[in-house]
This record gives sequence, structure tokens and C-alpha cells, in this order.
Amino acid sequence: MSGTNRQWQLGSRPVGMVKESDFDLVEAPRPEPAEGQILIRNLYFAFEPAMRGWLNDEKSYLPPVGIGEVMRASAVGQVVASRNPDFAEGDLVHGMFGWQEYCLSDTKPGAMGGVSRVPAGIEPQWVLGVLGGTGLTAYFGMLEIGQPKEGDVVVVSGAAGATGSIAAQIARIKGAAKVIGIAGGEEKCRWLTEEARLTTAIDYKKEDVRLRLKQECGDAINVYFDNVGGEILDAALVNMALFGRIALCGGISAYNEKELPPGPRHYMQLVIRRCTMQGFLLLDYFARAREAIDDLSGWIASGELAHAEDIQEGFENAPKTFRRLFEGKNLGKQLLKVADPV
Amino acid sequence: MSGTNRQWQLGSRPVGMVKESDFDLVEAPRPEPAEGQILIRNLYFAFEPAMRGWLNDEKSYLPPVGIGEVMRASAVGQVVASRNPDFAEGDLVHGMFGWQEYCLSDTKPGAMGGVSRVPAGIEPQWVLGVLGGTGLTAYFGMLEIGQPKEGDVVVVSGAAGATGSIAAQIARIKGAAKVIGIAGGEEKCRWLTEEARLTTAIDYKKEDVRLRLKQECGDAINVYFDNVGGEILDAALVNMALFGRIALCGGISAYNEKELPPGPRHYMQLVIRRCTMQGFLLLDYFARAREAIDDLSGWIASGELAHAEDIQEGFENAPKTFRRLFEGKNLGKQLLKVADPV
Repeated sequence: MSGTNRQWQLGSRPVGMVKESDFDLVEAPRPEPAEGQILIRNLYFAFEPAMRGWLNDEKSYLPPVGIGEVMRASAVGQVVASRNPDFAEGDLVHGMFGWQEYCLSDTKPGAMGGVSRVPAGIEPQWVLGVLGGTGLTAYFGMLEIGQPKEGDVVVVSGAAGATGSIAAQIARIKGAAKVIGIAGGEEKCRWLTEEARLTTAIDYKKEDVRLRLKQECGDAINVYFDNVGGEILDAALVNMALFGRIALCGGISAYNEKELPPGPRHYMQLVIRRCTMQGFLLLDYFARAREAIDDLSGWIASGELAHAEDIQEGFENAPKTFRRLFEGKNLGKQLLKVADPV
Repeated sequence: MSGTNRQWQLGSRPVGMVKESDFDLVEAPRPEPAEGQILIRNLYFAFEPAMRGWLNDEKSYLPPVGIGEVMRASAVGQVVASRNPDFAEGDLVHGMFGWQEYCLSDTKPGAMGGVSRVPAGIEPQWVLGVLGGTGLTAYFGMLEIGQPKEGDVVVVSGAAGATGSIAAQIARIKGAAKVIGIAGGEEKCRWLTEEARLTTAIDYKKEDVRLRLKQECGDAINVYFDNVGGEILDAALVNMALFGRIALCGGISAYNEKELPPGPRHYMQLVIRRCTMQGFLLLDYFARAREAIDDLSGWIASGELAHAEDIQEGFENAPKTFRRLFEGKNLGKQLLKVADPV
């Protein structure tokens, strides 16, 4: 096998809002697997807001993507050449294969090198969303950090996003009395109440979130699952119930700010209302992935869990598709289809 | 018994920094106890930063002090007239007796009405500090929320204050490997290392707290006990250990601001470092007061726990003494002696 391997490399560190021009489209030679290695052709890329943080030259839970390196990203792919007895041509696999057409892997676990099989009987792209990082983040974040109890009032921001949509529905499945999703735009809000069957959706683009939360559940939010930060986090803080729990999953409102914006002005409500605000990352729960996948698959099969994918197309559109997350365009999991399986 | 009862009443709601002129010195008639009541002569008033919050017309964990009402405050006093068989003249008692020379009480529990006896064998003013609200706040806040483990690195802000000084030492007593106190001024810092025997003290008036924390315990703070908020909370956030715990006790840096200042800019470190930030109030632990008082008394007796009181004098100085808290003048518990016991 020979030919080229197009890659999106990080060209420069974004300042403020990430731009398409921060990435360089490069043609590299297509690699050949050595003994023990496999060559994967990528089919779908997955996009998450947290990837924006990987572009900053800051110490975090993963090293930053280096200038000139292929952009780190989860992907589903198909084995097109194998010199590893555990993998055959045609196998569907997923892992951190990056924004490139082909990924060479020694199949050993690691931040960029691990390869997992796509289970039989599901759409391959599900392993990037509801049964992948975002679904599992929702699962452990809601159940381990949010800990909704029967009868609780649960609020989720970024509720039409890949993680928020699953987190909110898990609270419903676990018996929350009221689940309120905050999202931007009519279409997302309709999806939340009609498809995801939340109690209510608040459209932050048209409504005063603080006032609406007060009306819907003033002083009564037992669990707030936050994906956005900023004013919406403050709106939740002033409406928490005593001894409420805030599961901090993300803060997309600040990810593209040139300077770190002010934090939650009303954080002292944590004292007055005796609340807990706790951050978490999926990587601490990897060992329990099976449990989450079993539960999530079961809820999909029984019709209890709705999930949406926003699938764009074309390898050349990777940076543009990434920006959709920060433009609030995606409903559900943002994916980019870059090739068809053979 | 007849005569007058001088009172400090709230004259107007403070805007920004609390001023002496926000309170009115009023001469009321000295009340006479009816059947079942006692008359208490106040000996010491206690001052806490949280009292500033009671002056704002905002919903909180206690109703605001009303305009024209006696300023709410803990005090130690002596029974000077009793028509209640459970109390005799001369008994030393404490409770929320307010900024007035005499307090009439029906001795029934309640925010303003409860009366407790000063235990025999201790200085009466201790029940306002190390064995009172501030000591107990430190005890439950550090042990239940901070939960220091043997070998932990513990940082306390407002460490020379009544609560911080006790909280920091409890961490030392419980086996923390390193206890760092943040305070303002040389005298306080010397007291922290010499009397309270903390590992290190950081003088926020002279030193760069963020840099010093990085040097002393960068990425290694297991427990941060916060009394101040603002930049010092941010300095702690960027130096937390993975899975660290922040016990939110207070935020004195913001109490006298006209507008609520921005919150902790670095709160997303809670995610990256998977930390918990939890608020608490002593009132949730009242039922366990005995346990705290026994432990604290034992540590004082064994010489393990140092405590300091800053005792001002003169009833007319109540508002001025209150301001000392926000001027950072007090070392240890701020008290005002208003009368001698007979």
C-alpha cells in the first residue's frame, strides 16, 4: 500500500476563538505497518469542547498538542493493513487516531496509541458519542458526582450537547422529579422536551435563565450539571437547594476567551446553601467503562435514552466542524464523516 | 431594678465598608423580667465577619437585622435578675444577646433567645471564641469538609483569625505533614509559626501568595480552608493536588464590596484537578457541639492548641471594634469587654 495521508496539523496556537487557519492541511506519505502494527483508515472524527483546551500551552490533564503535530481527536476507523495477528483487515476500531486520513498504530494502550474494537450490532459512530467519551462522561458525572435521587430537581446546561443530553436523561431515568435542560435555540429545546423527554427546556438565547430557573425551581435545584460556566453557572448558584450538588463537567463559555474571564460571582452561595461543587474527568473512571456501556446500551435498546448525532462530511472540513461546537450549531454529538467503510 | 439600657441599633444598611455611623447608640429603659424570664448584663461581645452579611437586605441563612433593631451578636453575660428557677443571680451565661448592656431572655432556645451556661473552670470569654461559634466552625469545617489525612498538605487563609487559627491547628493535630497559614503582617505570621506551630506562614501583605504557595506546595495542596476568597482563593486553586478538597468557610475579602466582585477565575481547576469545593455552616452541626467542645478543651489542656483573643474595651466602641475585623487588625478572636462580672 502506498499513497498519501492528509493530515490536519496544529499550525499555531489559537488566540481567542479557534480559527480554521490555526490548522495546516498537510500531505504526508501514507505509512506502512511494521511487524505488530496496523494501519487504520479513519471513517469518523469526534469533536469535543475540551479539545480546545489541548491547544493551549498550559499544564493540564493531558499535554498540549504540539505545533506541527496532528490534531488529537477520537475517531472510528477501519483496519486496512495489519501485521498484528489480533487485527484483520476490515475490522472496525476506535481510539485517539487524530485528524488524519490514516493512522498507524502499534495497538498498545496509551493516550494516542490505544485501539478498541467497535462492538458488533451498533452503528460504529455511536462509540464516539453516546457509547464513547461523551456518553461515559455524562454517565459517571451524573451518577457519581451529581448523584440524583428519586424526586430531585436536576438542571443541565449545554443540555442539547453530546454530554448534556445524555446526563439529563440519566437523571430522568434515575427518577428525578424534574429535569430542566438549558440550550440555545428552538430546535434544540424542542428536541429536549420531545425526544429526550425532559420536563422543561430553557432557551438561553431568548430567555432570562436566572428568572426562568427561579420560576421553575427557585431554591430547589438538587443537582446542577454544568457544561458552560459563565452567567448560567451563576444563575444556577442562586437557585440551588440546601445541600445541593454541582457537577462541574466543562465551561465552554470561556474556552475561546483570550483572557480567563471572571469566575462565578455567586460562588459564596455554596456556603449559604451548603452546596458542593465538584470537578471530574472521565479518565478516572476508565476501569468502569463496561458498566456504563452496558447501562447506556440497555437504555437505548429499551427506548429510554434518545441520542442525536450531527454528522458533517469531508476531511477538509475538520477545523470548520470543530468550530461548530463553539458556535452552538451542533445538536447532539458533533461528528465528521471522512470516509465510508469498505 | 431600674435604669437605662444602652443599645447599638442598626440605623441604616451599610453601603460598602461598614461604618460606625451605620449604627445608632440609643438609650432604652432597662427591662424587668416577667415570670420565667431573666435579665442578663452583657460582659463581652463577640465579633465575626459573617455579621456583615446580616446587615444586607438579602435572603440568607438568617434573616437580616432590621433597621432600628439591636445589632445581633453573641455575648457572654451575667444574670442580674431572675424570675426563672433554673437561673440564679450571678450565673454566667452566653447566647445571642446583641449589642446592648442588658438582655431580657425567656431562656428558650432560638436564634436570639437561647441561653447556655458558661462551663465551670474556663475563662468566660472562651465560649465566644475557641469553645464557641468560631472554634466549632473551625472544628467541623476542617474535620467534616476538609477531612485532612495524615501526611496531607493543608493551607488555611485568614489563618490568624479566630476560625482560621483553630482550623489550621486541628489539621496539625490530625497529622497533616505541612500546615501553611496565610495572614497579614509580621506579628500574625510570627504567632502562627511560634504559638500555633504551623509549618510556615505567608504574609499576604508582603509576599506573592500564588508564588509562595507554588514554592511551598505547588500542585500539592490536599486541603484548602478558605476564609477570604478573592485572589487568595485563586492562588490556592492553581496549586491544588489532584482530588483535593476546598472547605469554603467565608470570603471576607468581598463582604464590604458595594457590588459582588468576580468569583474565582480559576474555578475550572476543580475539573482539571478533580477537586471538590464545599460550603458549610456551623448551624448544621449544633447537635454535635459537645463532641467539638470536648476535643477542643482537651487540646487546650494538653497544650496542643493555642488560641488568642483580641480584647477591646468599652460599650461605646462596638461598631469600631466590628470594623477591626475588616481592617485586619485582630489576632485571634475579636472581643469587646463591656462590663466586669460582679
